Amino acid sequence: MKNTFGVSVCVTLFGESHGPEIGAVIDGMAPGIPVDEAYIARQLTLRRPAGSISTARQEQDPFRIVSGVFCGHTTGAPLTILIPNGDTRSRDYQLGAARPGHADYTAHIKYHGYEDYRGGGHFSGRITAALVAAGAVARQALTRRGVTLGTHIARCAGIEDAPFRDPAADIARLNELPFAVLDAEKGKQMQEAIAAAGAAGDSVGGALETLALGLPAGVGEPWFDTVEGVLAHALFSIPAVKGVEFGDGFALCDLRGSEANDSLYQDQGRVCTRTNHNGGVNGGITNGMPLLFRCAVKPTPSIARAQQTVNLLTGEEERLTITGRHDPAIVHRARAAVDAVTALALCDLLAQRYGADWLGGQEA
Amino acid sequence: MKNTFGVSVCVTLFGESHGPEIGAVIDGMAPGIPVDEAYIARQLTLRRPAGSISTARQEQDPFRIVSGVFCGHTTGAPLTILIPNGDTRSRDYQLGAARPGHADYTAHIKYHGYEDYRGGGHFSGRITAALVAAGAVARQALTRRGVTLGTHIARCAGIEDAPFRDPAADIARLNELPFAVLDAEKGKQMQEAIAAAGAAGDSVGGALETLALGLPAGVGEPWFDTVEGVLAHALFSIPAVKGVEFGDGFALCDLRGSEANDSLYQDQGRVCTRTNHNGGVNGGITNGMPLLFRCAVKPTPSIARAQQTVNLLTGEEERLTITGRHDPAIVHRARAAVDAVTALALCDLLAQRYGADWLGGQEA
Amino acid sequence: MKNTFGVSVCVTLFGESHGPEIGAVIDGMAPGIPVDEAYIARQLTLRRPAGSISTARQEQDPFRIVSGVFCGHTTGAPLTILIPNGDTRSRDYQLGAARPGHADYTAHIKYHGYEDYRGGGHFSGRITAALVAAGAVARQALTRRGVTLGTHIARCAGIEDAPFRDPAADIARLNELPFAVLDAEKGKQMQEAIAAAGAAGDSVGGALETLALGLPAGVGEPWFDTVEGVLAHALFSIPAVKGVEFGDGFALCDLRGSEANDSLYQDQGRVCTRTNHNGGVNGGITNGMPLLFRCAVKPTPSIARAQQTVNLLTGEEERLTITGRHDPAIVHRARAAVDAVTALALCDLLAQRYGADWLGGQEA
Amino acid sequence: MKNTFGVSVCVTLFGESHGPEIGAVIDGMAPGIPVDEAYIARQLTLRRPAGSISTARQEQDPFRIVSGVFCGHTTGAPLTILIPNGDTRSRDYQLGAARPGHADYTAHIKYHGYEDYRGGGHFSGRITAALVAAGAVARQALTRRGVTLGTHIARCAGIEDAPFRDPAADIARLNELPFAVLDAEKGKQMQEAIAAAGAAGDSVGGALETLALGLPAGVGEPWFDTVEGVLAHALFSIPAVKGVEFGDGFALCDLRGSEANDSLYQDQGRVCTRTNHNGGVNGGITNGMPLLFRCAVKPTPSIARAQQTVNLLTGEEERLTITGRHDPAIVHRARAAVDAVTALALCDLLAQRYGADWLGGQEA
Repeated sequence: MKNTFGVSVCVTLFGESHGPEIGAVIDGMAPGIPVDEAYIARQLTLRRPAGSISTARQEQDPFRIVSGVFCGHTTGAPLTILIPNGDTRSRDYQLGAARPGHADYTAHIKYHGYEDYRGGGHFSGRITAALVAAGAVARQALTRRGVTLGTHIARCAGIEDAPFRDPAADIARLNELPFAVLDAEKGKQMQEAIAAAGAAGDSVGGALETLALGLPAGVGEPWFDTVEGVLAHALFSIPAVKGVEFGDGFALCDLRGSEANDSLYQDQGRVCTRTNHNGGVNGGITNGMPLLFRCAVKPTPSIARAQQTVNLLTGEEERLTITGRHDPAIVHRARAAVDAVTALALCDLLAQRYGADWLGGQEA
Repeated sequence: MKNTFGVSVCVTLFGESHGPEIGAVIDGMAPGIPVDEAYIARQLTLRRPAGSISTARQEQDPFRIVSGVFCGHTTGAPLTILIPNGDTRSRDYQLGAARPGHADYTAHIKYHGYEDYRGGGHFSGRITAALVAAGAVARQALTRRGVTLGTHIARCAGIEDAPFRDPAADIARLNELPFAVLDAEKGKQMQEAIAAAGAAGDSVGGALETLALGLPAGVGEPWFDTVEGVLAHALFSIPAVKGVEFGDGFALCDLRGSEANDSLYQDQGRVCTRTNHNGGVNGGITNGMPLLFRCAVKPTPSIARAQQTVNLLTGEEERLTITGRHDPAIVHRARAAVDAVTALALCDLLAQRYGADWLGGQEA
Repeated sequence: MKNTFGVSVCVTLFGESHGPEIGAVIDGMAPGIPVDEAYIARQLTLRRPAGSISTARQEQDPFRIVSGVFCGHTTGAPLTILIPNGDTRSRDYQLGAARPGHADYTAHIKYHGYEDYRGGGHFSGRITAALVAAGAVARQALTRRGVTLGTHIARCAGIEDAPFRDPAADIARLNELPFAVLDAEKGKQMQEAIAAAGAAGDSVGGALETLALGLPAGVGEPWFDTVEGVLAHALFSIPAVKGVEFGDGFALCDLRGSEANDSLYQDQGRVCTRTNHNGGVNGGITNGMPLLFRCAVKPTPSIARAQQTVNLLTGEEERLTITGRHDPAIVHRARAAVDAVTALALCDLLAQRYGADWLGGQEA
Repeated sequence: MKNTFGVSVCVTLFGESHGPEIGAVIDGMAPGIPVDEAYIARQLTLRRPAGSISTARQEQDPFRIVSGVFCGHTTGAPLTILIPNGDTRSRDYQLGAARPGHADYTAHIKYHGYEDYRGGGHFSGRITAALVAAGAVARQALTRRGVTLGTHIARCAGIEDAPFRDPAADIARLNELPFAVLDAEKGKQMQEAIAAAGAAGDSVGGALETLALGLPAGVGEPWFDTVEGVLAHALFSIPAVKGVEFGDGFALCDLRGSEANDSLYQDQGRVCTRTNHNGGVNGGITNGMPLLFRCAVKPTPSIARAQQTVNLLTGEEERLTITGRHDPAIVHRARAAVDAVTALALCDLLAQRYGADWLGGQEA
């Protein structure tokens, strides 16, 4: 399905970095969900450049919803959000040297030279604005039904954030923070490291850790449409994500079964596990414990230092120095995209299991 | 699509651990691909218990192809492989205590108690036999068209295998090895560690690393159906896989952009990269470099030690000691499933791009 | 998705007329639905040759369910039905002259000569046995939930059956009849006309009319996945179906709006329509009235008379006389396939709307 | 997939009759196809009210393409067309009496009262403007590759148009006509009949017949994704379409096999049929002959006469007289939607068979 994701709740993304508008269509969202435009705007703000560590490009993201909302609620018909591209300086970009680490070369091959190469075109991180707006609608639906989620920068430039301790409170707090860390001191160190990398004409990467609470047990499928598989499928769309792990993930390689297994116990008629090494998923299906996963975000490929590359027009090798405005890190901005993708994928999994209208049901 | 995966080339899995037969249907495979049943049998052998480190259950896997092959070639119609379940000792299993780390509890919730709980039912690793058989057909198709792939146990019980050095030769060698390592000495240590864990009533995990050669540049989609997303979606189906990373994966979190970017150069008209930190994929699309990824495989959850759990019939907590035959590691067996899933997903991506018949074209 | 149909409840068909086995996989059927094998066998009988007007080929259809049923109920995992091909006389068929009206030529082009051409291979009406068996499971699910359906031969060889008069009773009666007509006298005339056509080395066509009761209002989607579109998509798979119409269908072309509109009224809190020119669907969505549609079934293309055609091996024109056993009509047998397809498509639409488990809910 | 149709080339529709904008996203269209906006505008004109027989509502349809086109060619990324809704008089509509023959009641049930009921909302024929615009892009792609298509009003108000005689020329002519008939005299009679019905406060229906030339043999799938099934799926989305038949369609019910079979012959190495009773499709797959099908279009449900219905707000029965502007026929306007849907579905079938880039290949 290419630029569409989902089975019961689907999102379609379109637009290019320097085209007139980008947008998203959400199809299959239940009718009757209140849509708060201020909430959408707030999510878009979290995706936007924040302060000195991000690009100076001012993206105001004045979105408009042109279908699927009537009298403040979803109608059940496709919900379309459009975001005009305002401040686009096309002179910063032109077909020529393929930027290392970007999709310039692969786009050129895939689209036989017809790609809109300006600013990365359809591959641009800019498109995540539409994704974040769509995800904001999905999150409003989830929240009403008792499912909340949040993401922190678990690691950046080699600095490790504190882990989740008080899940519900941590999530609430993270959702207000422009630079989402659980330990403010570590956050300060990360931002200094980002600024230092930027000053050195370089960039840094990081890892994002996401927690979702309130998911019922029994969601997902045993083969192929596992919760892990569906989420990973969508998460890898986010530019710069190069790894996804659930629960203890790669650390499980070095554990023994007796350490990795989560013992079950009974709590007032509900089955729980004492630990959560499996991240809330067994056999591809939610077990009712918190859903926990991490995404690896590579360092921003746009750096100020000169790089060796090939010119797509001439086929000749050349030395490229990227000018213009670029972030020395995107991990803090990618957070909004991870939240959005997670919300959309969870809506889809829930709607498949409980029916198209479940998300529009009574508030939990 | 639940138990079906793929868009142009699709595989559907069915069967339970203790049912009469398991199987797979491959739909959309091009006509004219020679099908070598001996090759399929060989792949099934790689998935089977090998020697002292694996369970004594003898699975002979005498499969039969009941549709889609005529005169030794694929017909283009759905290709169905059936594998009867032979040596199934149902008395080893009964509904009762949920085995920690397994899907017993989640299956029970999802299927409202109607699940075939014997031996894990449809969640059993046994189902990967059908997946491996289907993948063997896909690999034969890929090989003819110049795409080869192989997987090694990159890490097991804390022991690290040597990395890929001579890709084509390494792949050829791995495909003959029952315990797939690049450094035989490390392999011996791993097997000793596995046996030691087994002797201690415990189990170990590991990481698998896969390399695919010969993929053309330009395969995959920018949003959602990225090469990473499609592969990860399928890979997370393999029981015990809890993480997937491409190129340097999570290690990219700690690199700087100047280290992580792969410089491009020109080699006889073909654009290459000097390093492969991105694992052969940029912007979700193959760049013509080797495709490289790793899967985290958690330790086998079936261990001999007593574990605390809940009885699904009574709802009471109880202490469970799993008797019967169990592997102290499955990472070496999961290798065959990873190869199978990779082959099927690559066939699908290639058929989407180049058309339904491309895989049946002339040998490369 | 080719040989798979459905979104939430999916069916995959496989097999060839003269291969060892044919079969179907149903995926996504809710757990907890009782599966009565005798009922499946009965549906298969309705698809089988009946008496003097059908081919002498004795198809016993001894199916077996190899997955997805445990203790007499669906488990929720993929349900696989296999039907061995017994009495197949391959010497009756060989690649050579393309039979007019059949898929011999189109299969040859599509599959580049690799098709299993024996008896029509994967295109054979034989495959509908697997479809009917799968549909029988779907009908058991629907019946429990209060949805019933039946099909009669509305027209055959120019003879018109009586229309539905007492829907529930008519459906019950039709489901017991091997030659499904509402007016027994018309049925006798049809059978005589079929026999006469057969005696003349020729064949006849007909129309099937299907009624489904008990569908809730609000099922289906406005664009693309309309109830009409989804059903038609599946119905056109049935060999020989060349037209599908809902409600008054093509007769609506000649009506005026004042005649075609169905007036609404209120009956004990439920909105109904006084007429049903729209066949129970408005804007692609069920309105709670009976679902009514008709399929055009062309005359059996296999006839005893000599026909002009082209030899697929030599490319030369030749005169073909089809020997062997063939039905002078298939409309009465296609009935079972129409019922099956309808049941599967309705299950899918209902599961999408009300959730994956709805079909396994309490008996209506 | 609800409001999205297609596998390789997909179209997503969104918008409501009285919302700010409607639109379509085409995903998967090959890069490199020239996009002529004047051609799109022309197609939109054919869908618009024409002269005295259509509603006075002036829809200027000033569309804009906001993504997927760069330097006059498709880029291969999602192509989005937006059409603002100009002249919308909301005061003509309000929730109240369900209009018989419309989707007012079914939308109300499906969307639990949250639907945008103004002017039919998402169910409005207005949405076909976006469909027609998307179809126009698809037709430009097909034409370049040698596939042309056209539709005439085969029947309206009981008046029969002449059949296709000179396919290529007929198609060329039809594509220029606002009221598409092959026999101008019959067209005049139809328009008079439409005007008469309108004068009587009533409306008329009709049948559309479509012919497509230049399709290669071998396109489509044997089960489920037959050419007939895929086209019918999409065609039934067009408001008012209640029947679809291929080749002789329902007339085949009354033919004998010897009459219905199309004899094959050889013409300069190409296999052809002497007749085309099967409409260019055998076994669900194109045979290289012209693709021919008909759609039944019911009379416009909006009529001036008083009708009996139920008020959706009060639940009471009431007598409804629809005021405002309405077409006494839509069959001539539905033509543009049929052409659009056909073009999109054929692009999808061709791209699945020949690969994602085939449509962008050299001009035929």
